[in-house]
Amino acid sequence: MAKPVLTISSKNYGAWALRGWLMCKLAGLDFSEKVIPPDDPAMKAEMLLLSSSMLVPSLQHGGIKVWDTLAIGEYLNEIQPKSGLLPTDAKARAHCRAICGEMHSGFSALRSSLPMNLKASFPGFKVWSRAQADIDRIVAIWRECLQAYGGPYLFGKVPSMADAMYAPVVTRFLTYDVALDKTCAAYCKRIMDLPAMQEWVKAAKAEAEEIDELDAEF
Amino acid sequence: MAKPVLTISSKNYGAWALRGWLMCKLAGLDFSEKVIPPDDPAMKAEMLLLSSSMLVPSLQHGGIKVWDTLAIGEYLNEIQPKSGLLPTDAKARAHCRAICGEMHSGFSALRSSLPMNLKASFPGFKVWSRAQADIDRIVAIWRECLQAYGGPYLFGKVPSMADAMYAPVVTRFLTYDVALDKTCAAYCKRIMDLPAMQEWVKAAKAEAEEIDELDAEF
Repeated sequence: MAKPVLTISSKNYGAWALRGWLMCKLAGLDFSEKVIPPDDPAMKAEMLLLSSSMLVPSLQHGGIKVWDTLAIGEYLNEIQPKSGLLPTDAKARAHCRAICGEMHSGFSALRSSLPMNLKASFPGFKVWSRAQADIDRIVAIWRECLQAYGGPYLFGKVPSMADAMYAPVVTRFLTYDVALDKTCAAYCKRIMDLPAMQEWVKAAKAEAEEIDELDAEF
Repeated sequence: MAKPVLTISSKNYGAWALRGWLMCKLAGLDFSEKVIPPDDPAMKAEMLLLSSSMLVPSLQHGGIKVWDTLAIGEYLNEIQPKSGLLPTDAKARAHCRAICGEMHSGFSALRSSLPMNLKASFPGFKVWSRAQADIDRIVAIWRECLQAYGGPYLFGKVPSMADAMYAPVVTRFLTYDVALDKTCAAYCKRIMDLPAMQEWVKAAKAEAEEIDELDAEF
């Protein structure tokens, strides 16, 4: 069978692409990347809508094409059930899917006012109150998980789908200088230290493209 | 074990509640309902955000609490694997999860400008162009599924998680008098004819509450 292909967009701006890519890495999948340039008209439209979508990320694996980040995660869990993408305990697994779902469809204020931008840094950034409510909920989610499952990742000893879902949030907290308690700051550092994250961030910083329309929009 | 409890909101306005409730019905779960009144302040905030969320729907089953509609669907599929919530074929299953994911995080124009309202009817309703783009995509999804899997439901002979995810869209198409081709119109009728849908709609129409704030917002 041909190597699986993951279609992604800009590594600097593409939060959904990062989630899908990280899940593939965590699943230990040997895959190649197909990059849709961020100035591709279809791609621009998708990014401005700030939602997960059909174009990116999408995974082609043999005869199977799967798009949407959560669907990719579930697919990877099926083909690599021992990778730890989902917890083995039924209760923890339900909890994991619930907070992945919250990230998938929620936190719109955070996503629109603090877009992922790995090249940028905004010390003292003023967070809008609705985005702050999103941040407060995310911090509550993280603290509950880290306490319930003992860390160092959200569901215990290995990174799961949930860590991948929240990884772009981790980068936003750093980019926009969001004040965090010690537990959450340490968790952010742990995610940024993952070899896969370091690889992604390095590639993002090396990207030539700048998307003026996105900068203008936000 | 005590009977599972599904927490829901208004049956007239609660599109996410309908999705979760319908999944429980399709899974053959014997459950009871806990209704959070739509004028509960927390509930109002959630409904105005138009997103899935922690409060509704959420399912309490023994020691397990699971919220977020997709997470509930995956949980139900785990405990009732033969109910047909997810297709048995791996490729169809990936496809099913992909279009469930699209509904879960996308179609924001449709969701905000054509909110679910089972008591209402707006003949000749003028659809905003961005909402029309959402409608066009949904029609394309339905047509592709009905053709690929032979109907009468999106993934074949029995209703699946995908039919539950799109059920509130079916009601919106009827409420807002959206013009549909013959295939999609027949699909809508088929969903509305499900005994569970008839039960839900009847209860929605019997609801006393009116939410002035929601009417004003949309």
